[in-house]
Amino acid sequence: MSRIAYVNGRYLPHRQAAIHVEDRGLQFADSVYEVCEVKDGRLVDEDRHMARLARSLSELRIASPRKPAALGTILREVIRRNRVANGIVYLQVTRGVAPRGHAFPTPAVPPGLVVTARSIDPAEGAARARAGIAVVTTPDNRWDRVDIKTVGLLPNVLAKQKAHESGAFEAWFVDENGFVTEGSSTNAWILTSDGILVTRPAEHGILRGITRGVVIEAAEAEGIAVEERPFSLSEALAAKEAFITASSTIVLPIVTVDGHRIGDGKAGPIATRLRELYHRHAQYGPCRATAVA
Amino acid sequence: MSRIAYVNGRYLPHRQAAIHVEDRGLQFADSVYEVCEVKDGRLVDEDRHMARLARSLSELRIASPRKPAALGTILREVIRRNRVANGIVYLQVTRGVAPRGHAFPTPAVPPGLVVTARSIDPAEGAARARAGIAVVTTPDNRWDRVDIKTVGLLPNVLAKQKAHESGAFEAWFVDENGFVTEGSSTNAWILTSDGILVTRPAEHGILRGITRGVVIEAAEAEGIAVEERPFSLSEALAAKEAFITASSTIVLPIVTVDGHRIGDGKAGPIATRLRELYHRHAQYGPCRATAVA
Repeated sequence: MSRIAYVNGRYLPHRQAAIHVEDRGLQFADSVYEVCEVKDGRLVDEDRHMARLARSLSELRIASPRKPAALGTILREVIRRNRVANGIVYLQVTRGVAPRGHAFPTPAVPPGLVVTARSIDPAEGAARARAGIAVVTTPDNRWDRVDIKTVGLLPNVLAKQKAHESGAFEAWFVDENGFVTEGSSTNAWILTSDGILVTRPAEHGILRGITRGVVIEAAEAEGIAVEERPFSLSEALAAKEAFITASSTIVLPIVTVDGHRIGDGKAGPIATRLRELYHRHAQYGPCRATAVA
Repeated sequence: MSRIAYVNGRYLPHRQAAIHVEDRGLQFADSVYEVCEVKDGRLVDEDRHMARLARSLSELRIASPRKPAALGTILREVIRRNRVANGIVYLQVTRGVAPRGHAFPTPAVPPGLVVTARSIDPAEGAARARAGIAVVTTPDNRWDRVDIKTVGLLPNVLAKQKAHESGAFEAWFVDENGFVTEGSSTNAWILTSDGILVTRPAEHGILRGITRGVVIEAAEAEGIAVEERPFSLSEALAAKEAFITASSTIVLPIVTVDGHRIGDGKAGPIATRLRELYHRHAQYGPCRATAVA
């Protein structure tokens, strides 16, 4: 099947999907994005993703290209045209096309909008969750507004590349005080020996993950205590469990950090349980999961 | 006259110049660039720009899309086709097009290459240099590898926008110790009351400006002492002169910083002299200035 992408009002064959060379997303990383899970043909947590997108656009004063409901229609249409039952849909908004100059274009230009979707075999993630993943650490060298979901991801690219070259799945950023901030494309969690889930508060130092928010709710509904506070690398190495969360990976248990075994070195039961609960959430709510076709 | 852009091997009408939506430059700011001055039909400091580009690519392990001489040929051809006598030529290299994933694509894909050029009326810059410019300051909140000339420029965009909204031409980044690092798209200089030129050393905290390097050489050839060291904002406010340098602006004297008058509040004679010397360099060398047509 040939893939289809949405670009600025048109549904195009994937290989023809292009944006202008003076799009500010390409020249300045002046652009934000969202990645949403598609589960059994449903777009998961649409409202939360649209709310986060609206915040990113607002922080950068980029106009919204469409109302949230219209964006949702485009997302679902791209999912439908690509026949994605399980996978992800990617949405990117740029400040638009203008002759190159750092300041915002005057007069303002229409924002750019790109949407793509692809299938991911759920068996891949399931196998990875059973085996558990390895994580390495790297100094957090990013700018101070990583709470905005921009495409300025080069530090994340270099961190993820370091992880892969080390045989790991993810890299954790560690700040100058020795605290873990987040992964290169995921949020970071530990379960302490007291059975308390710990994840960093969603201030400016991390991205406010949608999956992170759902997992906090799911854990609390299960009676698991959750503390939103920074945790250090040494605390993580002594933890009973550790795991990562993201829309594309859901919950993945960690079995090693920098080569040190976490807990008994196997995928932890609490992380595994939270993964199940997330799947249940994605299928049945409580958050709206919108039928695509 | 219709404009022409070079994109991945083809010379295209400007409005058709496009890159794929999965180009890593658009999705990850995984891309570097150069802006070179064109002066009286000549490409200025080609060798220095090619050397800096090679360093940026090497730091990020992006393959060079062409040998330096072939890149020079493309730059000159884009200048020629756009009939630019005075202006700038812009070159951007991306890691290429690949299905979205943070780590480098495996196998590697061919790098992307875009070149555009545009005319700038030299009278504009001359008038601005006579009047002098206003600068405002803003906290330096960027990542720690701004020595690599990447398109991850969103902090610079926001700083420049702040400057324009304050009625200023440029914003200076100030680090947490109160030292000026550089401008949003320019290097920063002061002339102390002792007549010493001061500009920050080209370590990881700033971009190694090509114009900056030429101005250091020109000043030293004129017998003006140059110190490469950090200077504080308070030192700048007490300076005899202050100015900025970049390929697109050459040397521009500063008359106010955050509303405080610098020196006598007029374009300084040393900055003005250095601007003249730079123009002489661009026309006659000593660095190679290559005839375009």
